This record gives sequence, C-alpha cells and structure tokens, in this order.
Amino acid sequence: MSGPLHPLAAKIRSVPDFPKPGIIFRDITTLLKDSASLRSAVDALAEHYTGARVQKVACVESRGFILGAALALRLNAGFVPLRKKGKLPAAAIREEYSLEYGTDAMEVHSDAIARGERVLLHDDLLATGGTMSAATKLVDRLGASVVGISFLIELSFLHGRERLRGYDVFSVIQYEAE
Amino acid sequence: MSGPLHPLAAKIRSVPDFPKPGIIFRDITTLLKDSASLRSAVDALAEHYTGARVQKVACVESRGFILGAALALRLNAGFVPLRKKGKLPAAAIREEYSLEYGTDAMEVHSDAIARGERVLLHDDLLATGGTMSAATKLVDRLGASVVGISFLIELSFLHGRERLRGYDVFSVIQYEAE
Repeated sequence: MSGPLHPLAAKIRSVPDFPKPGIIFRDITTLLKDSASLRSAVDALAEHYTGARVQKVACVESRGFILGAALALRLNAGFVPLRKKGKLPAAAIREEYSLEYGTDAMEVHSDAIARGERVLLHDDLLATGGTMSAATKLVDRLGASVVGISFLIELSFLHGRERLRGYDVFSVIQYEAE
Repeated sequence: MSGPLHPLAAKIRSVPDFPKPGIIFRDITTLLKDSASLRSAVDALAEHYTGARVQKVACVESRGFILGAALALRLNAGFVPLRKKGKLPAAAIREEYSLEYGTDAMEVHSDAIARGERVLLHDDLLATGGTMSAATKLVDRLGASVVGISFLIELSFLHGRERLRGYDVFSVIQYEAE
C-alpha cells in the first residue's frame, strides 16, 4: 500500500483545518467536477470487481452515494443506501457506532438485500473504519456476504484497514501521512 | 403531464404515514435496488438531455446524489454536489429556503461551476419546488446557465413546476394525486 499516489490524487483538494484545526480535509469535489476524472474514478473502482459477481452495491450516506450508484450501474448490480437513522421509510435494521464524541447509527431496509446475495460496500473515504465496520454488520445480519469494501480514498495512517480485517478492502488513492 | 404512469412507477414503494400521518412517501429504494430498473431510470433521464451539451450536473444532497452522478457520467459531464450548510470545506455560496417549519440552506463551492457553463440540475423528487428554486439561484449567482431541471419523481398535485417556471423541467414518473 506504499506505492506512488494514483494520478487521480492530483485532482483532490487538500483543505487545512477543516472541519477543525489540525485536520487536513481531502476534498473530492474537485475530482468529481471534472468529467474525465469522474469517469476514471468509477473505472478504477469497477475494474477491481470485474468477475466478482456483485449483486448489490451498498453505499454510505451521503458522499458514498455519489460514486456508489455509478459503480452499481457499471457492475450491473442494484444500489442500496445505508442511511442515517430515521430516513428510511420502511422496515429497517440499525447498527450504532462510535464517533469521536458520542455515537451515531446507520440503517438499511430489511428487504434491501436478500439472504445469500453478494454485496460490495462503498464509501468515499476510509478513516478509522468505524462507519464501515457497522456497515459490514448490517450486511451480516441480513444473511448476505460482503465480497469487497471499496473507497475512493484511504487515510492509511489511521489504520482503518485493520478494523476491517478479513475483508477484501480496496482504495484508489492512499495517503500515507496526514 | 397526465399520461399513464411510466413502467418504472411499478418499482416505487408507497409508504403511508411517513414521515408523518396523512403523507404517502414515495420510496425509490425499491427501484434502485433492482439493477435493470436503476439502468432504465438513468437511461430515461439521460435520453432527455441528449444533445443538450450539459457540462455539469449539480445535484441536491443526499438522494439527488444517487442518480445524479450516474447521469453526469452518461452525459460526459462533471458532478457538482449541492450540500446542506457547513459540509463543504472550501469557499462556498449559500441560499436559504423555506421549509414547512423554519428554513434550511444549501451551499455550492464557488469554484464548482464556471461562468457560462451549461448546468443540469437534479434531485430525486419534485414536491413544492422550494429546494430546487434555491438551487437555480446558486447557479445564477455563479454566472452559469440552467439548461434543465430533472427529477425521477414529480408530485404534480403540489404544482412545484409552477415555481420553476421558465426552466425546462423533466420528470420520469408523475403522480397526479397524493
């Protein structure tokens, strides 16, 4: 994971001190607004899962929705939103997870993923892995299998990958240091 | 706008009394999870804008992100998120708009759309049109032009289209009554 930065990294804007002092925010909007880069990002993600027979791409609200739906289309899979609590109108299951301060919760419709289905998880960024760990639990509880976990960006120095051990974790761009 | 329902309407789940008593919520997740329907929805949207030379697809957080990015890819355009306040890390402009109770605000990065660009706006659902009206103002303030406004679903009986008069408004599925 310590190779050179992917060419798409040049399209990411680094914003110091957002959302708070000392944090460098990796802003993907500068990549997304460029049509060629948008396409390259979806290509890079989709190529990794060629032949993986993905049936659903389940994506974390809200930035995970952006590339996730395009990825689902490319893989001929369905799209499933993993939403913040209270947003889904039908019967859903919930997982709570820890944030730096307090907890948050993620929900998925109980009928969004069928037992035995092959699910690819997606979010824009892997930090500590807490959110995505909750996502894997939701898929497990529905009796489906996680065939991969995909991110556009991985903040490798936060070691989120260790929290997702046992899964195939793929990211397009890795940052080795803050 | 009073023709038969689009075949994709059969994939929408109607949930009574969500988010509150008396409201029928039109749930698009049952459409999105079906790969063929997901593709048909993006096809239907993209076909309407063939030849429109769209350069950016600007999409309302968060459900507008889902089909919006896939639509941008299909049109060889860039993707621009219109986000709730405080989420965008770089310099942004803001529009406030009224909700049933109180107000909300939407932001776009100041450099997300260039002066003179051709912008397609997208959200999943047109209700009263208040949110999308704010979106048109953001594009106007950046000196760009709105070449169309697209929705998967239009609740025609709420007359949101009147609030967006002067724009080319397109929706795939229309509901004529609650």
